[in-house]
Amino acid sequence: MEKFDVVIIGGGPAGYLCAERAAQGGLSAALIEKRALGGTCLNEGCVPTKSLLYCAKQYSSAKHGADYGVTAENVSFNHAAVIERKDKVVKTLVRGVGAAMKANGVKVFTAEGRIRGKGAEGFEVEAGSDVLCGKNLIIASGSCAVVPPIPGVKEGIASGFVMTNREILDLKEQPKELVCIGGGVIGLEMACYFATIGTKVTVVEMMPKIAGPTDPEICNLLMSTYEKEGMTFCLNAKVEAVGTNTVTYSDAAGQHTISCDRVLLSSGRRADVTGLNTEVLGLEMNRSAIVTDEHLCTSVPGVYAIGDCNGKLMLAHTAYREAEVAVNHILGKKDKIDYSIIPSVIYTNPEVASVGETEQSAKDKGLQVKVVKAPMMLSGRYVAENLKGDGFVKLIYDTKNRQILGVHMVGSYASEIIYGAAAMVYSKLPKEHLDKIVFPHPSVAEVIREALFMI
Amino acid sequence: MEKFDVVIIGGGPAGYLCAERAAQGGLSAALIEKRALGGTCLNEGCVPTKSLLYCAKQYSSAKHGADYGVTAENVSFNHAAVIERKDKVVKTLVRGVGAAMKANGVKVFTAEGRIRGKGAEGFEVEAGSDVLCGKNLIIASGSCAVVPPIPGVKEGIASGFVMTNREILDLKEQPKELVCIGGGVIGLEMACYFATIGTKVTVVEMMPKIAGPTDPEICNLLMSTYEKEGMTFCLNAKVEAVGTNTVTYSDAAGQHTISCDRVLLSSGRRADVTGLNTEVLGLEMNRSAIVTDEHLCTSVPGVYAIGDCNGKLMLAHTAYREAEVAVNHILGKKDKIDYSIIPSVIYTNPEVASVGETEQSAKDKGLQVKVVKAPMMLSGRYVAENLKGDGFVKLIYDTKNRQILGVHMVGSYASEIIYGAAAMVYSKLPKEHLDKIVFPHPSVAEVIREALFMI
Repeated sequence: MEKFDVVIIGGGPAGYLCAERAAQGGLSAALIEKRALGGTCLNEGCVPTKSLLYCAKQYSSAKHGADYGVTAENVSFNHAAVIERKDKVVKTLVRGVGAAMKANGVKVFTAEGRIRGKGAEGFEVEAGSDVLCGKNLIIASGSCAVVPPIPGVKEGIASGFVMTNREILDLKEQPKELVCIGGGVIGLEMACYFATIGTKVTVVEMMPKIAGPTDPEICNLLMSTYEKEGMTFCLNAKVEAVGTNTVTYSDAAGQHTISCDRVLLSSGRRADVTGLNTEVLGLEMNRSAIVTDEHLCTSVPGVYAIGDCNGKLMLAHTAYREAEVAVNHILGKKDKIDYSIIPSVIYTNPEVASVGETEQSAKDKGLQVKVVKAPMMLSGRYVAENLKGDGFVKLIYDTKNRQILGVHMVGSYASEIIYGAAAMVYSKLPKEHLDKIVFPHPSVAEVIREALFMI
Repeated sequence: MEKFDVVIIGGGPAGYLCAERAAQGGLSAALIEKRALGGTCLNEGCVPTKSLLYCAKQYSSAKHGADYGVTAENVSFNHAAVIERKDKVVKTLVRGVGAAMKANGVKVFTAEGRIRGKGAEGFEVEAGSDVLCGKNLIIASGSCAVVPPIPGVKEGIASGFVMTNREILDLKEQPKELVCIGGGVIGLEMACYFATIGTKVTVVEMMPKIAGPTDPEICNLLMSTYEKEGMTFCLNAKVEAVGTNTVTYSDAAGQHTISCDRVLLSSGRRADVTGLNTEVLGLEMNRSAIVTDEHLCTSVPGVYAIGDCNGKLMLAHTAYREAEVAVNHILGKKDKIDYSIIPSVIYTNPEVASVGETEQSAKDKGLQVKVVKAPMMLSGRYVAENLKGDGFVKLIYDTKNRQILGVHMVGSYASEIIYGAAAMVYSKLPKEHLDKIVFPHPSVAEVIREALFMI
């Protein structure tokens, strides 16, 4: 039985970063992963979708090149080639994670992890035919797509007609008509990709709006942008059945059937500890998720749950931060997780990015806020690149403490700009300091500066 | 004689923002501009170049589309159309500045400003046939291209063979062979544009490196990138003469003559107060620049000099900040300019962005620093979009105070990422706080986080 300071189950962003940080902190670490290092994020989530979306953006640019003095004939898109390219991207990055593990002396086990229980010297975990013992046990087993109990879905999955994020990213044939069940981030990004490359896309969403808690004004802008490109959104719509090349949903107007050749199941994800035998530890659970505190400790001392399996934010960068907090707790370094400063991005075109309080959440909390909205057309760069455009930045400003509580953006570069806004929210710097930060001109980021001055 | 709290000469970024901020601060403001609102930056500098560079980037993407699954035939670029588009961009933004002046109640005079002197009630300034009187006088007259005393340059300018930033941005015919005299930011951006669209470009630079104080490793990367695209760099090279369709320079190896159909004079800019009659006030000068202190005050109380005419950083966003500081000084609000936290960007492809100390400047100051360099290939998004790439981020870290003193980047999105780094340098947050800022995954900005951890 090989002994480690930490045994980590799951090699996604939570697990591999945890292993890296633990090793750098002087701890011996074992990482158990049954599929590929990088987890959902790297293999069938964040990264492959961004690879696809970037290609779609290039296609869109090439088609609209005339606006920029660029003419081209017979512009076409090869979806299968893009999937192949995506595989290269993933392979490169998975290799990188492996190399980082090796460089840091992390022992990687490619096997299914199964918890045996707590022994005299620590937590015992089976990794295939090996048995490991960890002073600390980190569960980072991730999440899986929710498969709602809709008649016909199981049969659809079996036949390949219905796909989750996993299968659709390996689909070499471009669908002609795609229905996305669920208009959250995953559904929207895939809808955006396929709509851009010419698939007829319908998004069926149960809620009255897309994109979950995202600022409603931003959601409307996104919807109207994609509607112009031929996408259809069915809101307040409940999927009743999946048939042979059909999806049936009902809304206030009655029942409707859409024909399509593929369905993406993007109605959410749930924490997944299947097969881990966590029961043996008697961990406190919240449905399928392991309950954790601000140090990522579970109800059992020495056991941590990081990443999607604790069901908190289910974002790779949340997982990264949780991994650091857990390692710091083991090392006795003061640290704790603050979910209120974690940004989120939807990589559509235009991009959507947010951090902190929304108008609604601030209102719900009874916070004394002022909301300002600055159009991106105030940015010289935005005009230079778009000429027309309806992107904007919204700030949620705490008038009492003179601090920024939230930033919400839609428009070009939002994904790369938002971290600075997250830093502003985190730092709690009062406005008179934020006003002194110098933004390069011309940049789209300057719109944050404009919004600050509008307060 | 119309009276104002502030009379501003020059309607560029310094002048127009000063007018806006003054008006919003409750001051009556007059703005005198002899050409178009927006000054050099908007009409013949930052913004039009970015408009051109974005079009060139679209062209480059379309040509290399196959890497992204996009095929197109007969991809071609219409330079004249791009110049026309640029004119639209400029017109839109100049109109925006005018509207902002109007909305804020700033009185704009389209005339040449000429200082008469100090009268009983303030500074008297002629604006064409009007005479204005300002309790405070703000000089924001900008800069002009340096015309070095090289034999043949004057004749070249007269014939149109030699151009400055002003003329080249209106050139409708794409040059076949362009020589840029000076490899600073302006020279490089125009060289980059023309090289991308197929012009044979040679950059002749007097110094042993391009891009002034920019990190040498970044400069080398930029040079090797553009050399691969056919650009030629002549360093340590002194231009001796401009002839008929030739430029002659000398270096250690002797004298060389390059043939070309156009020359860009990009050997620097100097503060310009020509025609303003500043002499009448007896302002302290440093060559052509007005001497200012940290409040932008000149040697004469009540007179401020902001923007390029004080010869400090000559960047539009420096001008913005200076305008705010000057207005705050008039309003009696505590504020001062800090030139050490001002970012700078070169909008080449890849983009270059920097803020704060460089390795060299930190060394010169005897600062105790650690320099870390993180390749952008650590970013999943960078790999997803580039597959291969040699972009990187360099941090200059103060080991004593555990603060970031400088950030230097080359690679995609650098222009939009750098403001957050500027915020980090400005805030002086120690590393243990910077480590807690959450960067969205996947983003290129995350490389800053990776670099932070490498410290």
